[in-house]
Amino acid sequence: MIASRDERTTDPHTAAHGQQRSTPGHQAKDTADHAGSDRPLHVVIVGSLLTKLIRRTVQTWPAFDRVHRSAERRLPPYGGDREPSPTINAMRDELRADLLEVGRLLVSMAEAARTAMGHATEALLTADREICETVIARDVEINDLQRQVDQLVYDTLARQAPVATDLRLVITGIQISLDIERMGDLAMHVAKTALRRYPAPAVPPELRGVITSMGEVADRMAGKVGLVLTTQNATLGAELESDDDAMDDLQRQLFNVLLHREWPHGAEAAIDGALLGRFYERYADHAVNAGRQVVYLVTGETSEPPGVA
Amino acid sequence: MIASRDERTTDPHTAAHGQQRSTPGHQAKDTADHAGSDRPLHVVIVGSLLTKLIRRTVQTWPAFDRVHRSAERRLPPYGGDREPSPTINAMRDELRADLLEVGRLLVSMAEAARTAMGHATEALLTADREICETVIARDVEINDLQRQVDQLVYDTLARQAPVATDLRLVITGIQISLDIERMGDLAMHVAKTALRRYPAPAVPPELRGVITSMGEVADRMAGKVGLVLTTQNATLGAELESDDDAMDDLQRQLFNVLLHREWPHGAEAAIDGALLGRFYERYADHAVNAGRQVVYLVTGETSEPPGVA
Repeated sequence: MIASRDERTTDPHTAAHGQQRSTPGHQAKDTADHAGSDRPLHVVIVGSLLTKLIRRTVQTWPAFDRVHRSAERRLPPYGGDREPSPTINAMRDELRADLLEVGRLLVSMAEAARTAMGHATEALLTADREICETVIARDVEINDLQRQVDQLVYDTLARQAPVATDLRLVITGIQISLDIERMGDLAMHVAKTALRRYPAPAVPPELRGVITSMGEVADRMAGKVGLVLTTQNATLGAELESDDDAMDDLQRQLFNVLLHREWPHGAEAAIDGALLGRFYERYADHAVNAGRQVVYLVTGETSEPPGVA
Repeated sequence: MIASRDERTTDPHTAAHGQQRSTPGHQAKDTADHAGSDRPLHVVIVGSLLTKLIRRTVQTWPAFDRVHRSAERRLPPYGGDREPSPTINAMRDELRADLLEVGRLLVSMAEAARTAMGHATEALLTADREICETVIARDVEINDLQRQVDQLVYDTLARQAPVATDLRLVITGIQISLDIERMGDLAMHVAKTALRRYPAPAVPPELRGVITSMGEVADRMAGKVGLVLTTQNATLGAELESDDDAMDDLQRQLFNVLLHREWPHGAEAAIDGALLGRFYERYADHAVNAGRQVVYLVTGETSEPPGVA
């Protein structure tokens, strides 16, 4: 909820559309005339060309576009049975461009969260102070992307008032962005744990194997979140679930090592190990959650969330 | 994202409004006539009476209503300068009833999350198996309330297409509900930790004091989340921030005990203690987050989120 109030209430585009939309019943005729005079043909054509250009620029992130298009086929066409007018086409293109931009931002977030955890794991295993500090400093970039998604979703809702699947798609954008933003936070927590023990390594030799594996699973999962956003392949969603099971198994292994009678490193290292285990496990939970939201959009099927808290 | 796809696409109310809204330009006149014939005066009057009745029923949760009313004063009135028509009044009442219902659900969630953590702390300190199991079993109730908020927000967006502050209010409902839902999850984690050690107590004598204090701060904070939702008092939001600082201090105290050279309980109890500390601390983070969202709606001011992950 980062959007500045001033920006919102003084945005003339939003305000104008808002008023038009909220004028029902017998006043709608005036509004329609007003809307007509607002959008002469050349504006519609230029707008349409512009959104086509935007669409082409972002076509490497086709996932959100695909859901939008398939929704179009499933739903009754906008405005009843007749052929859509050029204005409607321009509106569709605008919405499509917005959805593509949301998808593009989410993919960037997933990539950033993946890089962050990759670097954090490396810093943890090598006790590299510089990498730790980079991971911590760059978390603001992920937060900033999250805010951009937030803002874009508001703008889209205000300008386009999408319905049915499009509406769900737009709102889901916020929820996925919150999950990925938390993945970034958890990578930062791993880096902070490494930094707290610097120059000593935070991970004793007994844990290196399992932490390395957890880092690998985390990396694979974040990669799949990006892929599932791009391809909307429901199989990848299922893979995320089994990756999450693998992560849970690794966490159990980790605890077995920590709780072994001959653990020689004392309570402090045990606590670090347990918290690190939880950071990786929750990173995985958020990845599964993000994947589920996308899969739900595609298949309409939902399942109980993992223990994300 | 729990809304069933079938429910959404076959809801005639939603579909009708959706089509009307997305019919711009030269087709709007037909739609307006259609909308007019759809809503004869007696329907408007009955609808208005019905929403007034709903409003009266839920008037004990006035917070969301207050923001909505103050937003009404700040924003240009719906439909331009002229007096709003009865239809517009009915729409406003509908939106108001929806917002009140969202607020009511959120207050119920906050109360449930408060009860859950209260019971979990009690079960933890008394090693009471039955209470643990109750907390764990009742978490589904909080999840269910969260889904109700989700569904209501979608329905409201689809039916009312709110703009500006109302739009932000509706979306914020989802975000607050996610924070409170996670507070419930964290209470469940505390109960699970207690259950894992049963019949032994999970909290050794050295930690009872600090855990008791953490439980008290958590209880106070969840209570304030409910209050800030009901009263929208920004001072309570500020109090939540300082409560969160108190919780962070308690977590540091807890770690000092765990890491003391003479900690006699071994690695397992130390790990339990550290994880419990993290559960309480994150419960507090989510409470602050929920409070901030409400305060932001009232004041338009935002601040950096706490380390919620």
